[in-house]
Amino acid sequence: MLLDKNTRICIVGLGLLGGSYASALSRQGYRVTGIARRQESVDYAVAHGMIERGSAFVDEELLGEADLVVFSLYPHVFIDWIHENGSKLRPGTVITDVTGVKGCVVYEIQKSLPKGVEFIAAHPMAGRESSGIEYSDDRIFRGANYIVVPTEANSERAIEMCKALGETLGCKDISVLDVASHDRMIAFLSQLTHCIAVSLMCACDAPDLERYTGDSFRDLTRIANINDEMWSELFLANKDALLREMDAYRACFDELRDTIASGDREKMREMMRLSTKRRKRFDKKV
Amino acid sequence: MLLDKNTRICIVGLGLLGGSYASALSRQGYRVTGIARRQESVDYAVAHGMIERGSAFVDEELLGEADLVVFSLYPHVFIDWIHENGSKLRPGTVITDVTGVKGCVVYEIQKSLPKGVEFIAAHPMAGRESSGIEYSDDRIFRGANYIVVPTEANSERAIEMCKALGETLGCKDISVLDVASHDRMIAFLSQLTHCIAVSLMCACDAPDLERYTGDSFRDLTRIANINDEMWSELFLANKDALLREMDAYRACFDELRDTIASGDREKMREMMRLSTKRRKRFDKKV
Repeated sequence: MLLDKNTRICIVGLGLLGGSYASALSRQGYRVTGIARRQESVDYAVAHGMIERGSAFVDEELLGEADLVVFSLYPHVFIDWIHENGSKLRPGTVITDVTGVKGCVVYEIQKSLPKGVEFIAAHPMAGRESSGIEYSDDRIFRGANYIVVPTEANSERAIEMCKALGETLGCKDISVLDVASHDRMIAFLSQLTHCIAVSLMCACDAPDLERYTGDSFRDLTRIANINDEMWSELFLANKDALLREMDAYRACFDELRDTIASGDREKMREMMRLSTKRRKRFDKKV
Repeated sequence: MLLDKNTRICIVGLGLLGGSYASALSRQGYRVTGIARRQESVDYAVAHGMIERGSAFVDEELLGEADLVVFSLYPHVFIDWIHENGSKLRPGTVITDVTGVKGCVVYEIQKSLPKGVEFIAAHPMAGRESSGIEYSDDRIFRGANYIVVPTEANSERAIEMCKALGETLGCKDISVLDVASHDRMIAFLSQLTHCIAVSLMCACDAPDLERYTGDSFRDLTRIANINDEMWSELFLANKDALLREMDAYRACFDELRDTIASGDREKMREMMRLSTKRRKRFDKKV
């Protein structure tokens, strides 16, 4: 049994992602409960059929019943939670998370858990610009990539259970990556893109530019609408990898700049052709 | 009469944009003809009801009949065309274009035209990654911005006719900008974004990254699939303005990089909040 309809799942943290997990799993017929900080989030989740029941405190009954607990919290909140409440998890429970960076949480969590409780790190490459359970939507998982990030401490059983969770959510391509490779990948694909969009909007100080804009600028800056609390934490949690990717990107940007300045059209076209060729691999397959 | 169903329109250049103009105008009941380099493009346009008739040479009969001629050509091809064939345009004709940069074409074209022929520069902020008439689609104009770029040589009548053309295509917000402001705006909103996307793909040399990617990377790099012939010409045609915008953006990117390196979370959040606030203005209103 990896994940079947008898598996009881508890979601800790009912925000955008936690709510979307709860929706997707309930819709698939799983019995899902939830724990949130605010009673309103619990009420909302129950009223919208996302969870059977839930509580706005660390409810040992809900945790005790759960075979799988999904933590959908900010990294430092997740770590604090485990330090304070980890002992309430029942031996035999598998826990997983949705944290976008892994090195900063996975080892600390794994060493803080009681014997018999296993943490397998994972997350979907999915999200929204808005936060809060009222924006949750299980369609964000459709065609999304899902990444499992095991360490040497993980069992095959937990890794397989976690892959099954990604499939159950509706994700398309389920991958397994080690922690360091994962955090490098995230620095490039996700964090660097947010840095670029934020920098571009900070450079955008002319008034009325929205009257002239086209879709390319809109698409590129969609993620410039950013949750500053969460992303500043994630950037610092993966600082070294992110700085390396920022510098590598900047070197390419500078190269293109100098190519334009010197009027070297053939070199410019070469970079554009490389860009076009590489970009084709990223078209979405749903 | 600015633009009515008696206005005869000839499109010179039947590629992605020329074909989309022809489709939109024919669908609105205008009598549209076309001139293209390749007979296949003419045949395609006729077969798909985009034009009534057309020719694969510079047909003086078609030009003589037209009240409005729309040039959908690369900048240097447009200039060469006018130098070689401008004398074939009938006095009283208004001509316009779709060129994304203006300083490099508008003065040269205006001084090369025969007396009585007026060039009013304009373009929609719309396009596609693919080129060629078979990708043309008049839906690209829906909700798009349209910009008229007059010089002192232009008459009110031609400016109004050009605005009416933008509305007829289905564009949403019709603006008027002087040449220098236009080229600065284009350098920032369009050319810089393409430079960013190309640089990011050039920095993307790890294999298999597409297995892990999310929508933010996909959206940001959509325009990294780029027509190198056209864009290298446009970059060089607007080089000074583009280099200024690249440098201003790079200064913001460097500021964010240093903020992350020094761990100054409050400053990072300040940049993210500015970014979020500014980005909200750019949401599409259709």
